[in-house]
This record gives sequence, structure tokens and C-alpha cells, in this order.
Amino acid sequence: MKRILLKIAYNGENFHGWQKQEGVRTVQGEIESAIYNAFKSHCQVFASGRTDAKVHAIAQQAHFDIDDGVPTNKIKTILNRILPLDVSILSAKKVKNDFHARFDVKSKTYLYKVYFGERNCFLSDKVGVVYEKPNLEKIKEISQIFIGEHNFKGFCSSQTSSQDFVRTIYKIEIFEKKSYLNIEITGSGFLMHMVRILVGTMLDYSLGKISKSRIEKALVEGKRDLSGRTMPPQGLYLKKVNY
Amino acid sequence: MKRILLKIAYNGENFHGWQKQEGVRTVQGEIESAIYNAFKSHCQVFASGRTDAKVHAIAQQAHFDIDDGVPTNKIKTILNRILPLDVSILSAKKVKNDFHARFDVKSKTYLYKVYFGERNCFLSDKVGVVYEKPNLEKIKEISQIFIGEHNFKGFCSSQTSSQDFVRTIYKIEIFEKKSYLNIEITGSGFLMHMVRILVGTMLDYSLGKISKSRIEKALVEGKRDLSGRTMPPQGLYLKKVNY
Repeated sequence: MKRILLKIAYNGENFHGWQKQEGVRTVQGEIESAIYNAFKSHCQVFASGRTDAKVHAIAQQAHFDIDDGVPTNKIKTILNRILPLDVSILSAKKVKNDFHARFDVKSKTYLYKVYFGERNCFLSDKVGVVYEKPNLEKIKEISQIFIGEHNFKGFCSSQTSSQDFVRTIYKIEIFEKKSYLNIEITGSGFLMHMVRILVGTMLDYSLGKISKSRIEKALVEGKRDLSGRTMPPQGLYLKKVNY
Repeated sequence: MKRILLKIAYNGENFHGWQKQEGVRTVQGEIESAIYNAFKSHCQVFASGRTDAKVHAIAQQAHFDIDDGVPTNKIKTILNRILPLDVSILSAKKVKNDFHARFDVKSKTYLYKVYFGERNCFLSDKVGVVYEKPNLEKIKEISQIFIGEHNFKGFCSSQTSSQDFVRTIYKIEIFEKKSYLNIEITGSGFLMHMVRILVGTMLDYSLGKISKSRIEKALVEGKRDLSGRTMPPQGLYLKKVNY
């Protein structure tokens, strides 16, 4: 057996997220069934982490084990021929047998696309829409208070099963381009809805809806009702997984 | 009562087409329910014609009747505030009470977006994908045999309920741009799947899969098995309705 690491892009719109569940369409489900169809091997595919329903991936990573006889350099082409058009294998490479796509993650980068332009029905599944132009300078300013190691319990869905809320944010970069504000957040790991709440909090701050002291309090006291809104999943992209 | 004509754009991806049906999401259903929420008026919205599941509209048109007291110049804004983001009202104007969005159609223009570029999961719900670069000159050449009045029974789904298959095609324009071939067809009206079959036939001809004489025979004999493949709905856009 050898271990293969896949780099995968997907359009989250018609998926109930990454993780396989009975009776719904998931990215893991599609990939495992493509591997079975291609190589007649029932295997489990382990991703760097799950993504929620409607969340996209520019470069998710996931590993699985397969018979040594399967030619590594053909896996990408063979799987893409079988997979539906809303999932793409970007690359497939052999990794060490003790490599783990989830446990070996050093950091991840998420991109959130905020759209403040004219109503456009053809974009609605690819962006998070806001109705006022966000203030770039205020967002850049407030983003700095999240950098470093913090307890992010106040920036996490109450439905999470996580017990440990401490994460490190290494970098937040913000780019304005035409009617988009692209916010890229790199961190050691992310809690349930954490990126969407961080972005919502920065936007609410930039619109004067919540104060800096309240956000600081949310970081210290870990209360979800102190932080900002949860942005919709359609604007969120898993951009990079670093090992 | 006054009659209002709406110009509407929608992303067909998550709609079971225009026409209202029990238990599924449709554009007509969303618009009628927005009108009810906004104006407390149960009314029926009549479109220029239905579009199939997953087919988009850049500018569908549809009329409905509403109390004279509703301010015409506010209808667009009010409905857009209620409607989900994948449908947009582009304009709303008062028309004569005997105007009919379907019966008064003079011609319609459909756009089909053929994509022959690299696999891209973020485009898959907006284009019809082909795996070979189509031959622009051959498509331009064969498109000419459809111009004029013909019996299009051979270019229509067998599931149609139409009895009269005669339609006039006024114009077919083809634009190549980067990895797209945009095909625009203007005609008096279109049968079920007709645009998708016309485009599929032109593509099959350009790839040498079917001959010109076979296509001419399909036009004369009206047999569906003589014409080309049906392209997927995702690439089809209702672009313009002319009254």
C-alpha cells in the first residue's frame, strides 16, 4: 500500500460540506466513490479538516491509501474523468505512509470574499453580500487585535463539539478590488464558523455596529453574543493548507 | 388594477425552472410569494415562456396585475429586498392592460456559453463544458442552414407537448473569447431543448461527428436521432425578449 495526498478544489454550492453523511451529497462521498469506481478499492479519504455546506475549496488536501500497483501519475486524470464537474483533483502525489492530512497541518489559510457591488444573481453562490461599502482602513485596524494566540470561544458556533478554543492567528490580509473585499486569514486551525464570525465582526466594527472594547471583551470572556454576525458560507474558500 | 411588466435575471442553478410546481423551488414561485409578502396580493405572474431547471436568465420578462395604489417606481426595490439573492428584478414598468408577456413576444434571444478551457469547478454551473476546442469556422458555416422558417421537430425533446414545430430563426451569432464560445440564437420562439440541441448539433458537426447532409435530413424529416447531442442546461441563458 502507498499513501496518496490529493489537492482538491470544489464549488461548495451543491454539497452538504466535506464530510460524508448518509443520504446527502458530500465532497468526501464523491471522491471515495470515484476512487472505488476507478480502482475498485473501498478506502477512506482523510481531509485537512471538514468544510461546511456551501463552503468552497481552492485547495483542500486529503490523503488515502491505495495499492502500490496504481500509477500515481495517472490518479489525477483518472479521478477527474469520473468526478462531477464541481469537484476537481488539482494534483495527486505519493507521501510517506505516516503522513496524515489532518494531524500534520501546520496552518491553514481561508479567503472570505465580501461583495458590496450591485445586486448580481450570478455571484450569489460565490460571495458574502453586504449592502454598504465596508471601510477598508477600519477593517485593517481591527484585524490586528485577532493576531496571536487567543481563546476564540466567543468567535465560534455554539454547536461546536470542540473543547479547546485556543488557536493562533498568524496573519490577516485584506485586499480591495472593484466591488470585492477579499479577507485572507492564516491560522493554526479554525473553530466551527470561526472565519465567518471573524469577518462578520470586522465588518460590524467597520460599520460602527460594535465597538473595539466589546470585541476585546469577546476575546477575553469568550461570549458569542459579544462578537459580530456570522457571514454566509457562500463567500468562504479554503485557500491553502500548509504542512 | 394595473399591469406591471418585470424584467428579471436569475441564476438557474437552484431552481427547478421558471414554472411553479408543488414542492420544488421555482422562479415563478419565488416571485409570486415576494409579491404576496410585499403587497398582500395573490397574483399570477406570466412569463415570456418557461425555462428549464438550471437554465439562467439575463433578462426574462413577466407581467402581473396589481392594485393601482402600489407605486410602480418602488416595485423593483421592494421586491429585491424580499427576493433571495439568486433572482433579481432588473426593472418594473406599467404596460397596457391588454399586454401579455407571452402572447406578445415577437422574438427571443438565447445565449449558450460553451466552455473549452481547463477544468474549473467554479464555472461548472454557468457553462456547457466540451473537451475539445470547437472549430469556429465550421460552426459559423453550419449555423447558416438553420436560418429561416423550418420545421424543428428533429431539434426538439420527445417529451414536448408542442404540436406545431415550425419556428423561424432570424440570426445566429458566434463569438470566441478566451476559452469560451458564446452562441446567440434569435428566433420567433423555441421548442423544448431546441437551443441546447441546435448548439449540440453545431458542435458535433464541427468535431466531424455528424455530416451536413444528415443535419439537412434532420430538418426535412424531423427525426431527433439525426440531429446532435443535447447540451447541458447550465450553459443556457435567456438573454432578451423582444416585444
